[in-house]
Amino acid sequence: MSQARIGKLVVIGTGLIGGSFALDLKHAGLVGEVVGVGRSRGNLERALQLRVIDRAEQDAARAVEGADLVLLATPVGQMDAVLAAIAPVLPRAAIVTDAGSTKRDVAALYRRHLADTLDRCVPAHPIAGSDLSGAAAARYGLFDGRKVVLCPLAETAAASRDTVAALWAACGARLVELAPERHDAVFAAVSHLPHLLAFAYMNSVLDRADADTCLALAASGFRDFTRIAGSHPEMWRDIALANRDGLLADLRAFRTELDALIGKLDACDGDALAERFARASAVRAGWGK
Amino acid sequence: MSQARIGKLVVIGTGLIGGSFALDLKHAGLVGEVVGVGRSRGNLERALQLRVIDRAEQDAARAVEGADLVLLATPVGQMDAVLAAIAPVLPRAAIVTDAGSTKRDVAALYRRHLADTLDRCVPAHPIAGSDLSGAAAARYGLFDGRKVVLCPLAETAAASRDTVAALWAACGARLVELAPERHDAVFAAVSHLPHLLAFAYMNSVLDRADADTCLALAASGFRDFTRIAGSHPEMWRDIALANRDGLLADLRAFRTELDALIGKLDACDGDALAERFARASAVRAGWGK
Repeated sequence: MSQARIGKLVVIGTGLIGGSFALDLKHAGLVGEVVGVGRSRGNLERALQLRVIDRAEQDAARAVEGADLVLLATPVGQMDAVLAAIAPVLPRAAIVTDAGSTKRDVAALYRRHLADTLDRCVPAHPIAGSDLSGAAAARYGLFDGRKVVLCPLAETAAASRDTVAALWAACGARLVELAPERHDAVFAAVSHLPHLLAFAYMNSVLDRADADTCLALAASGFRDFTRIAGSHPEMWRDIALANRDGLLADLRAFRTELDALIGKLDACDGDALAERFARASAVRAGWGK
Repeated sequence: MSQARIGKLVVIGTGLIGGSFALDLKHAGLVGEVVGVGRSRGNLERALQLRVIDRAEQDAARAVEGADLVLLATPVGQMDAVLAAIAPVLPRAAIVTDAGSTKRDVAALYRRHLADTLDRCVPAHPIAGSDLSGAAAARYGLFDGRKVVLCPLAETAAASRDTVAALWAACGARLVELAPERHDAVFAAVSHLPHLLAFAYMNSVLDRADADTCLALAASGFRDFTRIAGSHPEMWRDIALANRDGLLADLRAFRTELDALIGKLDACDGDALAERFARASAVRAGWGK
């Protein structure tokens, strides 16, 4: 789609997601210049070396001068400050989108800082997170076959939404649309809760006197179960706080399930344990097939 | 080692582990005949078709006549009945080993059923479990580079231990020796607890009204975190019951960690959350490197 060609793309937060988006659009010939914004000089220099970005800038307000599209790809906890900084200087025609892992809070930030240009704001969430982070983790093709959830505001113009959708489609992504509230409920359950459980589990192993022996003998089950415990601590603190109410409800529901399991094991109720395991196993074995 | 050549190998439980052990020894030319024992006719026929075994037998006592080595590769909950069945007819010279995921209970079973031939008993645990099961999952090379934990009894003869060690070494496995008590404590922490948490998590998702949307939007974090929730329900019921006291202690320690996390999130204590996440993330990112 011709409307998806972008003259100047500004990626604020030049990490795995922002960097991979830039690489895909460059490869597809859909972008003129990519300006990368970040707090870390070292990361920006790596992004330049790897040709993820064409120009580096540490000042977000200066970077967005003349921008056609701005992608906010920082941890969600930084987006308030970033939007406050760019709002006074953002070109009227610039589309602003994001890759935030939570959507109710980001939608509220658009309303607070960009109240006059909500037609140009397109909240979004590419489902391509990883335990890897930084510009060095960016790669062409990261979004191929992945889902991107768009959560347009009531005020978002169809043209803005379509431009962002076309760019993600050019990256090979499949688009899904959800209201911000439903997005946050679903991702509390399938992403935020497992991350917190994985962090908690790793800490419970590290608290053991025989932690070193445990880590030495742990195998593939441990490897996969804990992979997400290697994720970016600051990003996950921000997500947990941003989606706090839904996540607390899910943590408590999980705790109830855990208590029931402990009760069944304590009572040596093998039939009840096998029944719960079989229900989980049957669904998981068929998932994604 | 010449002592490791086995004339007649009897594999009781012809699934992923038992079948892969048989395939590796056949490939290495270290075994004459492999007799597979199982409860399921269909599984035994598949094992014959795939040449995992040379002969199928549903009666364990008949199978062990003339055996040189017997591998118990059933879920641990079946080993009491299997040992009771074979004990009266087992050749005096036969070595008996197992692939049970718990070791204190299996050591106790050897003492109960094979009290007069404990010199020939070698409790062991190959760390190569999977969410896959059955003869069709067996494959050559499964144990290459994997660890096998040997938990010899005080009465186990060095020659018996060495034969079993040599066979696993021929499969490419690396051998580790631990007392049964330490084995069970370590594997409660790094294997049994994560499996129970994965089962409980899957059930907490399935209990949601929006479970279908959740499963449709779940991505790679969910995929890896829940892989072990696809495991064999009966096998994991048996493991949970066999290692009940250690596992209950670990489940309760995890719940304490979880409660602390819920408390920090409830209090919006971002610094404390980030500190816990960073500790877990740093260790996990360096693990296995």
